[in-house]
Amino acid sequence: MSGSFEKKIPPGEDRERLVCKDCGFVAYENPKVVVGAVATAGDRILICKRALEPRTGYWTLPAGFLELNESAWDGAAREAWEEARARIEPVQLLATYSIPRISQVQLFYLARLVDEAVSAGPESLEVKLATWDEIPWNDLAFPSVRWALHHYRAVKEKAVFAPFSNPPGETGDMTR
Amino acid sequence: MSGSFEKKIPPGEDRERLVCKDCGFVAYENPKVVVGAVATAGDRILICKRALEPRTGYWTLPAGFLELNESAWDGAAREAWEEARARIEPVQLLATYSIPRISQVQLFYLARLVDEAVSAGPESLEVKLATWDEIPWNDLAFPSVRWALHHYRAVKEKAVFAPFSNPPGETGDMTR
Repeated sequence: MSGSFEKKIPPGEDRERLVCKDCGFVAYENPKVVVGAVATAGDRILICKRALEPRTGYWTLPAGFLELNESAWDGAAREAWEEARARIEPVQLLATYSIPRISQVQLFYLARLVDEAVSAGPESLEVKLATWDEIPWNDLAFPSVRWALHHYRAVKEKAVFAPFSNPPGETGDMTR
Repeated sequence: MSGSFEKKIPPGEDRERLVCKDCGFVAYENPKVVVGAVATAGDRILICKRALEPRTGYWTLPAGFLELNESAWDGAAREAWEEARARIEPVQLLATYSIPRISQVQLFYLARLVDEAVSAGPESLEVKLATWDEIPWNDLAFPSVRWALHHYRAVKEKAVFAPFSNPPGETGDMTR
């Protein structure tokens, strides 16, 4: 990368964008979509110990960036496979979280494991089917992992529920 | 734009990205987030006649691209203001739709109008509070507008409901 981008307002627009000084290419920056799942087998929940930065060694739910030309659920299922070699089927959308500081929208599905054969994929150091009491609460990777686990807990006995959004007052900002 | 981007697999990645031939800048292409609302006043629904391409002159729900550093709901409320000078408050998430061909994830909220003072913003030719029978079904701008209207209709009497996703078999692809 040449570092030759500058912030300016392109013709016909109303706000600054990243524009290449050399060729005028406008690199639109858009919010990114993260898709993930609370995938369960009975009372146990699939969790993964991260092999990658950021937050290597901390525990997360299977989740990652949605790819081009992929539906949200397909992305969540792909991430479960990549991170934990888990095959999952959807129950319903559990939550949508917004993390404005880093421009992310996160969609977490409640899902069931098709079978209990899970193992660490290349992005995980270890994977586990954990009961509620076995979840390493002090070693979770991100605030939204904690949110999704608690939101799952709040609805696990319900047949139908409205999806959650961020807990009141929580922005997901880890820098504060 | 110089047109000097090529598709290649950057070091450490597993799929092709757009890379600038001149400087190596990787222009990551990500799915885009559209946020919108079915905003109601009693039995009437806010609809907007589009002033912009694509689908100029066709009717839509207030919706648009989520901006950087914006929460999903804040984006939906901003779009209602920009397109219809409408102030809205959230009821709950109505649906998440995926349009894989154009790499969009759309979040539609069920919302209430704070008051009935609406008027066309710069992106609308006309706005209207329409009863179900007044909706111009043959002149809707996009498939997901039709989906969201029908999904609203399916739950309007319910206190709690699970959000919808695409109707079975529908991809939102307007080219087929």
